[in-house]
Amino acid sequence: MSYPTLERISTPTDLRALERRQLNTLANELRAFLIESVSRTGGHLSSNLGTVELTIALHRVFNTPHDRIVWDVGHQTYGHKILTGRREAMSSLRHWGGISGFPRRGESEYDTFGTAHSSTSISAALGMAVAARSRKEDRHAVAVIGDGAMSAGMAFEALNNAGDMNDINLLVILNDNEMSISQPVGALTKILARMLSGSTYNTARRVGEKVLGIAPPVAELARKVEEYAKGMLSPGTLFEEFGFHYYGPIDGHDLDALIPTLNNLKKLKGPQFLHVITRKGQGYKLAEADPILYHGVSKFDHTAGIQTAKTAGKLTYTQVFGDWLCDAATLDARIVGITPAMREGSGMVRFAQEHPERYFDVGIAEQHAVTFAAALACEGFVPVVAIYSTFLQRAYDQLIHDVALQNLPVVFAIDRGGLVGADGATHHGAYDLSYLSCIPNMVVMAPADENECRQMLHTATQHAGPSAVRYPRGSGSGVAPAAKMSALPIGKAQVRRQGTRIALLAFGSMVSLAEGVGETLDATVVNMRFIKPLDEALVLELAAHHELLVTLEENAVIGGAGAEVSRVVETLAQRPRMLRLGLPDHFIDHGDQAQLLASVGLDEAGILASINALYQRDS
Amino acid sequence: MSYPTLERISTPTDLRALERRQLNTLANELRAFLIESVSRTGGHLSSNLGTVELTIALHRVFNTPHDRIVWDVGHQTYGHKILTGRREAMSSLRHWGGISGFPRRGESEYDTFGTAHSSTSISAALGMAVAARSRKEDRHAVAVIGDGAMSAGMAFEALNNAGDMNDINLLVILNDNEMSISQPVGALTKILARMLSGSTYNTARRVGEKVLGIAPPVAELARKVEEYAKGMLSPGTLFEEFGFHYYGPIDGHDLDALIPTLNNLKKLKGPQFLHVITRKGQGYKLAEADPILYHGVSKFDHTAGIQTAKTAGKLTYTQVFGDWLCDAATLDARIVGITPAMREGSGMVRFAQEHPERYFDVGIAEQHAVTFAAALACEGFVPVVAIYSTFLQRAYDQLIHDVALQNLPVVFAIDRGGLVGADGATHHGAYDLSYLSCIPNMVVMAPADENECRQMLHTATQHAGPSAVRYPRGSGSGVAPAAKMSALPIGKAQVRRQGTRIALLAFGSMVSLAEGVGETLDATVVNMRFIKPLDEALVLELAAHHELLVTLEENAVIGGAGAEVSRVVETLAQRPRMLRLGLPDHFIDHGDQAQLLASVGLDEAGILASINALYQRDS
Repeated sequence: MSYPTLERISTPTDLRALERRQLNTLANELRAFLIESVSRTGGHLSSNLGTVELTIALHRVFNTPHDRIVWDVGHQTYGHKILTGRREAMSSLRHWGGISGFPRRGESEYDTFGTAHSSTSISAALGMAVAARSRKEDRHAVAVIGDGAMSAGMAFEALNNAGDMNDINLLVILNDNEMSISQPVGALTKILARMLSGSTYNTARRVGEKVLGIAPPVAELARKVEEYAKGMLSPGTLFEEFGFHYYGPIDGHDLDALIPTLNNLKKLKGPQFLHVITRKGQGYKLAEADPILYHGVSKFDHTAGIQTAKTAGKLTYTQVFGDWLCDAATLDARIVGITPAMREGSGMVRFAQEHPERYFDVGIAEQHAVTFAAALACEGFVPVVAIYSTFLQRAYDQLIHDVALQNLPVVFAIDRGGLVGADGATHHGAYDLSYLSCIPNMVVMAPADENECRQMLHTATQHAGPSAVRYPRGSGSGVAPAAKMSALPIGKAQVRRQGTRIALLAFGSMVSLAEGVGETLDATVVNMRFIKPLDEALVLELAAHHELLVTLEENAVIGGAGAEVSRVVETLAQRPRMLRLGLPDHFIDHGDQAQLLASVGLDEAGILASINALYQRDS
Repeated sequence: MSYPTLERISTPTDLRALERRQLNTLANELRAFLIESVSRTGGHLSSNLGTVELTIALHRVFNTPHDRIVWDVGHQTYGHKILTGRREAMSSLRHWGGISGFPRRGESEYDTFGTAHSSTSISAALGMAVAARSRKEDRHAVAVIGDGAMSAGMAFEALNNAGDMNDINLLVILNDNEMSISQPVGALTKILARMLSGSTYNTARRVGEKVLGIAPPVAELARKVEEYAKGMLSPGTLFEEFGFHYYGPIDGHDLDALIPTLNNLKKLKGPQFLHVITRKGQGYKLAEADPILYHGVSKFDHTAGIQTAKTAGKLTYTQVFGDWLCDAATLDARIVGITPAMREGSGMVRFAQEHPERYFDVGIAEQHAVTFAAALACEGFVPVVAIYSTFLQRAYDQLIHDVALQNLPVVFAIDRGGLVGADGATHHGAYDLSYLSCIPNMVVMAPADENECRQMLHTATQHAGPSAVRYPRGSGSGVAPAAKMSALPIGKAQVRRQGTRIALLAFGSMVSLAEGVGETLDATVVNMRFIKPLDEALVLELAAHHELLVTLEENAVIGGAGAEVSRVVETLAQRPRMLRLGLPDHFIDHGDQAQLLASVGLDEAGILASINALYQRDS
């Protein structure tokens, strides 16, 4: 394909120099380019197809990068990247050394704020708007947030703060595609849906009039009475309650609606709210038909579409979890499953179908998810909170204050522990072993393989207090889960190989690597299984019979599992040397998982090199 | 004073057996008892005086403990405690071995859910309501939440989830006293205020009619049109938008309003929302006049009131921070101050007065506070986020994802690090050194004294990346802060005493203790100053010249500052023995700070005992 208009755009200045009629061509080319590009690299597709026109309109109307656009979540910024000088770099998207799949301040001055976790954009844009006000700079700050992301508490915290400031230059654009990654849930969804049912969008002209005719409070009053009488509850009510001026909804694929509306809104002071309706996957029939399938994709043939024939390959840990949850729920009526809007990602599709009354998608609301689980535990249920490691950071206080402190039997099924690959620094599950093991009452496990994952999840449901099973993204060593579930003894490790001089104490994903290293060095290899409680008796025994203990974990080496192994050993009068290997103390970029692990020395060669370096230092 | 009616109430069953007219007497006695009791023990006063009638009405109408009442924050539950068998135990409130100042599941079956951190109650009550629905139990779940707590995101997450469930038995009571601990802020405040201005409360009778006349959707529609036309935006709109049925506001000090309304609401299914207006300090003129002063009190003479004559004693760390912030802001135009609704607690009263345009109280919204700060940092400001250690847990993801990952110069002024005393397990700042030091780019400091605190705060503002200064509750060793501010060299510790054999590596509040121990043992004493980056060169030097290194920190020993000292030492061919002392791996109760520290071995005697035990183990 060729993209003659798109190829003329190196910066938004070029875009602003185009004639209005050329923008439709640009949109078509951008959409085609996106499909071709993402089919080659993999990445997010549906969300980017949904924001083609909005991206063009924003860069057309606002003076970027002087004006600040903050893209919530940021997986919908491929179009933005392409139009801000990164068209050619798209071939390296999400690959080692290439550009990120999210906005990054270091990558471009047009990326005003790094995003990836949901619902930060209003807070960030508000901070920028306040900064401009403070410096008396004529600058607009725009947050673009999806309807899914609007369900997170921090978005409301920001609305509540912003709605109180009448003198700031803030525009919040609700990109309403009636979707999180999963189907949206919660009351908010219904509010938004109410307005759309049976009504056509306001045309740009009518919105324009509305925007310009707004000033006097009396007119405002009259308008509201009329609106309420007409539509009962408009979706705007909620946002107007928070002190925003609400406009829309308008068609987010119609540049004739978007451009005049944004131009009009630019002239207004105070917190403005524009409701835009878009469709995920817009313009690519396959993605329109199945936006969830096309949400995040691997490379595919964009003419044929994604082939979803079941591969006969290894199960992913996510699938192991999903299957276990269905089996466990059938056996144990106390079990309920909770997800903060990650039904597909967490492997809960089948569970949701088989046990709809025991399945709770609470929206993008990690804080609420955990406290809600705590209360269910109070009432005798065994709630399983399925959550990515990186997103559990959102519910840290609730885990401490509501679950651990009350010693409640909530099971945390922590997916994406360790390095996740292409999503990069914002998504690595690099800290959970550190931030969980310092919390009293927690039992923290990491499986060496798929079957152990299943057995650990079962163990967790049999434990009377809080527990976490932390497993990596993707598949493991390929040990098929046994149908039978047997609880593991809490706090007991498993010696996998008896060697001499050196003992390798491996946690979770590091166990199979350690077995390879163990062969090379004739070292003892232990599958530690429990980060907490630690098998102290075994550690003491290992300390008595080895000159060096090496801990291996796919977690920050600071404060991780190794830190507690050391604490057992270091007080001994006769103590072995220690070496803790784990993730280094810097943020790790995106790339292939194996490549990333090798880059931080967590492959066999790297581990051998670290051990050798220790001995060489002596001589 | 005597309390004849109150003394007849051992459980709510006794209360329910009283005649209606006796309840007014009960309320008067309960209020008098509260004032007398709290003046003797210290504790929260204003909030408890505000909920006397609501507490009586709830236990009158609902069948507690079968019905579940969840008290948000929980510092307003003294009346609840008194009426549920803990009247006499009030003399031990918040004292070592005594009852807690917050609801605790272990303390009473009437304490259905432990609270203390704000805004968890709707999530918890929803979990209980869902549990009852699932088991087909006829059980009510009631959340009592203040207007301040309503501003936190997780309350909205819970509303959004609950509003979608039409078949649950959930009542949310908004206890609207127009207050957080500080003055309330944000758009929500205005929404709530709008309804109250110039209107009288609905009488119980009218509310009753409304409650009973609600069923048909058409009538509902008509009622709403009328409401909107009349009052424009009622405070109910917001909550009705979320799918709740809204009633009120009613006078929360009028049992004739409360009891019939609650009785009516009990008959309804689905998520109900009752707006109750109360006054903090109600019935005690001194507290009514200054509810902030009487929010949390030490012992005082309840006839004379609290004497606020300035004591000539030592400055608290909070005051040191507050003074520094004012001074620093005057010198450096980049500095802005941000608090999540803790102006008084964080020592920002004067700053708010002197620099109103650079002071941001964002509401009880820790998540938003941190991301808002990150954005201000993007724009060249140096935001200082003043926050308690325990509340920073609420913004952990934002600290990682928005601040540290982007390496932004946000200063975290972390108050109440370590054991806080009477507030107990929910409020101890026991984990921050663990959960912060595993995060890349963070600089983490802990001052040995007040002057060092000031200099560290200054150091933080001069540093180009994120940093935290963590200081304890109360006062320190009494070193007056020097007016002059000089930046400390990042990552450099300070040797305070040169000794032999043993080196004590002390962090923050442990330094002065270490000096005492150092004298006794003739040990080297180091004020480590930086948890991160650690002064590795000095640690190596200490390792070369001592047989034992002891780390001392008022933080969880797991993953704390000592863990990284060990990592430097443990790889050495010739390595000293290590002993890490810190907070043990269990939740620590309330009590006097010094008493608590002694109880976990963090006083001079305890430290000496731990060191002796290590040596004795050898023989």
